[in-house]
Amino acid sequence: MEYSNLLSERVKSLKASAIREIFKMLGKSNIISFAGGIPSPELFPAKELGKIADGILEKNGAKALIYGITEGYAPLIEIVEKRNAQKNVGKDFDQTIITTGAQQAIDLVGKALLNEGDGVIVEAPSFIGALNSFRSYNARLFEAEVKEDGIDLEQVENILKTEKNIKFIYTITTFQNPTGITLSLEKRKKLLEIAKKYNCLILEDNPYGELRFRGEDVAAIKSFDDEGRVMYVGSFSKTLSPGMRVGFLTCHKDIMDRVVVVKQVNDVHTPLLNQMMVTDYINNYDFDEHIKISAQKCGEKCAAMLDGAKKYFPDSVSLTNPDGGIFLWCTMPEGIDTGKIFEKAVEKGIAFVPGRTCMADIDKVSNCFRLNYTTVSNEKIDEGMKILGEILKEYV
Amino acid sequence: MEYSNLLSERVKSLKASAIREIFKMLGKSNIISFAGGIPSPELFPAKELGKIADGILEKNGAKALIYGITEGYAPLIEIVEKRNAQKNVGKDFDQTIITTGAQQAIDLVGKALLNEGDGVIVEAPSFIGALNSFRSYNARLFEAEVKEDGIDLEQVENILKTEKNIKFIYTITTFQNPTGITLSLEKRKKLLEIAKKYNCLILEDNPYGELRFRGEDVAAIKSFDDEGRVMYVGSFSKTLSPGMRVGFLTCHKDIMDRVVVVKQVNDVHTPLLNQMMVTDYINNYDFDEHIKISAQKCGEKCAAMLDGAKKYFPDSVSLTNPDGGIFLWCTMPEGIDTGKIFEKAVEKGIAFVPGRTCMADIDKVSNCFRLNYTTVSNEKIDEGMKILGEILKEYV
Repeated sequence: MEYSNLLSERVKSLKASAIREIFKMLGKSNIISFAGGIPSPELFPAKELGKIADGILEKNGAKALIYGITEGYAPLIEIVEKRNAQKNVGKDFDQTIITTGAQQAIDLVGKALLNEGDGVIVEAPSFIGALNSFRSYNARLFEAEVKEDGIDLEQVENILKTEKNIKFIYTITTFQNPTGITLSLEKRKKLLEIAKKYNCLILEDNPYGELRFRGEDVAAIKSFDDEGRVMYVGSFSKTLSPGMRVGFLTCHKDIMDRVVVVKQVNDVHTPLLNQMMVTDYINNYDFDEHIKISAQKCGEKCAAMLDGAKKYFPDSVSLTNPDGGIFLWCTMPEGIDTGKIFEKAVEKGIAFVPGRTCMADIDKVSNCFRLNYTTVSNEKIDEGMKILGEILKEYV
Repeated sequence: MEYSNLLSERVKSLKASAIREIFKMLGKSNIISFAGGIPSPELFPAKELGKIADGILEKNGAKALIYGITEGYAPLIEIVEKRNAQKNVGKDFDQTIITTGAQQAIDLVGKALLNEGDGVIVEAPSFIGALNSFRSYNARLFEAEVKEDGIDLEQVENILKTEKNIKFIYTITTFQNPTGITLSLEKRKKLLEIAKKYNCLILEDNPYGELRFRGEDVAAIKSFDDEGRVMYVGSFSKTLSPGMRVGFLTCHKDIMDRVVVVKQVNDVHTPLLNQMMVTDYINNYDFDEHIKISAQKCGEKCAAMLDGAKKYFPDSVSLTNPDGGIFLWCTMPEGIDTGKIFEKAVEKGIAFVPGRTCMADIDKVSNCFRLNYTTVSNEKIDEGMKILGEILKEYV
C-alpha cells in the first residue's frame, strides 16, 4: 500500500540525523571516529552505577519499578535545583522537570511553544538534534552565525526586526556544539536584553558547561533572568552517562505547566531506576571530583588533537580552540565541500561530522566540519589526524 | 511576563491526565486506590533485575552507558520479533522499534501521521494517555462505543463514511483500558476489512494481552495484516515493570522510517541499560512462567473485586467481567455523574477513575468509572468495595 498521503506534513521532509546514521555505520567497522559526541566512555562510573542499581532494586525495588510522576523523582529534582542554585539558575517562578535526556527537554519546549510556521533563531552552526526537533514542528529556522565570542547579536536583532512570530532563540552557550565556542558574558547579557526588547524567549542549552578544562566559568543567561524569559536545559549525559538518558529543564512554571502535559503523552515519565541511580551516585560519590577528572581528560585529548592538526593539517584550515567540552570546529577555504571530503575520509577509515549537517539548510555546501577528540585514544588521535591531514591536503 | 501568546495552539487546551493527577494526590495519603494501572507490584522481579543491572554494568558497562541507536538494542529487537512471530505478528515488510514505554510508541505514531485537524477513531471509553497524545497534535477524535465484544463496527463505518482524513483507528484489542473487554475474533477481521475499504490504518495497542487468566488467546488484528495496514504496540510495562519504560512498535518499514526520525528528536533512544536489563531477564529467567504467575494473580484479585461488588454494590451498577488484564468497568444508571461520586469517594478514602477522563469529550457527564484490582491487598479490596458500595447507594 501507499503511505505517502498518510504521513504528517511535519515529518515528511525530515531527514534522519546524519550523525546518528554515521554512528550506525561506524558500529560496523574499524574506523577511527572523530564523529562522536560523548566524553571518554571509560570514565563513566559503570561499576559504581552497577552496585547502585543492585542496591536500589534490592532495597527499594517495588518503588523503582512502578510508575513515577511525570515531573520526575523528587530527590533528583532537589539535587538539580541545588546545583542550579550554585549557578544562580532558577528563581521562585521557575520549576524543574527531569527529562529523558536533554534532547527530550528541547523537544518538549518545541512542542509546547511552536505553532506550524513559527520561527526559531538558531546558531549557525548548531546541534542537529535540536534543529531536527524544531523542524519536526514545522518551525522556520533563522540562522545567526557563531563568531569567536558566540552568536552574532546584530544578526539576531535583524531577524527579530524583520520576522514575526519568532518564539525563541536557541543557544548552546558554553563549549557549543559543534564549535566548542563559549558565548561571552557581555553578549549573554545583551542577548537577554534583545529577547526582552522583541518579547521572545531564550532556550539556553548547557550540556557541556561542566566540562571546563581551562579558564573561569561564565554565568548562565538564566542567572540574569528576572521574569522567566529563559528556559534552561542541562544533562547528565556528558557527566555521568549518555545511555542513561537523564536530563532536565528549568523554566517558568507557566511554561512548565504545558511541558509537563506534553511529557505525559510522550513517555509518561523518565525511567525511575535511571533517575534513582543518578540521585544515588550524586549523593554517595564525589560527583564534582568525577566531573573534574572528566574535564581534565577532555583537555588532554583536545591538546592531542590540536597538536595533530598543527602537525598534519594544511595551514589554510583554521580550528577553534575551546576551553572545555568535546568538540573542535574546522574551517577550510571557501568553496570546499566537506561533505565530499567526508566520503573520501570514511573510505580511508576516518569519520568526522560534515558541516552541512549542523546547518539549518543542510543542502547548502559547507567548508567546515566537526571533530570530537574524546572517544579515541591519543595514539589513534595522532594516527587519524595524520590520515585526515593527508586527505585535506588534496582539497586545498 | 505573559506566556499565553507564546504557547503553541496544540497544547494550550490540553489538560493534564486526571489519572496522573489522582496518582500524585494518592502518593500523599492513606487512600485505598482502585485508580492504579499496573499489575501487583510485589510480583515485579526487583531482586533479579538488580543482579542483572549490576552484572551488565560490571561486565559491559561502557557499552550500556554510551549512546545506542535510535531503533533500539538489537538483541531486544530480536526477542520482540521472536515473541511477535509466535503470535503471527510481523511480516517481511514490518520493522520493530524499541520505545520508552508503549505511551511513546503511540505518541510517535501520532506525530508521524497526524496533521492538524486529521481524524482518529477511538473507542469510547479509551486510554486517556492515547487520547491526550492525539489531542496534542490537534487531531479530531471520533468515538465508537465499546460493546460487550469490543468496538461498534457500524459506528466505525459511519464515521469513515461521513468524515474525511481519518488517518487511523486506535483500538486496545485485548482486556481493553478501561473496560477490560476483548474485541472478538470476528470483529477483528471485520475491522481490518473496514480499514481496507476506507484506506485508513489501524493502531492496535496490546499492553495487557499477555495477562490472560481465563479462556483462549484471540489472534491479533496484526496477524491478519498482509499489506502493512496495522501498527502494533506492545509493552513490558505490564509484565516486567512500568517504571523501566520499555515498549515497542511493529509497523510497516515505510511508516517506521518516519517514526525513527521522530524518535531521534524525541529522546535519541530508549535508555540502553533498561533495554539490556529486559533482554537479560528474558534470556536468563523464565519470563513466560513469570507472566503466567502475574496473570493468575490478576485473576484472583479480579475475582475478589467482583465478589466485593456482588456483596456491596447496588444492583443497578453493572460491571464487566474480564478474562484478563487489570481493569473492571462499572456502569451506573443514566444521568449519574461519577465525577461527583469520585470527589465524595476520595473524601472517604477511596479512589477510582471517573468515566469522563476516558472519553474524547471529558466535559460530558459520565455514569461510568474504572476500577483496578491489582495494586491493593484482598483485604483492602473488600474494605474498599464496602465503603464504595455505601457511597454508590447514596446516588442510585
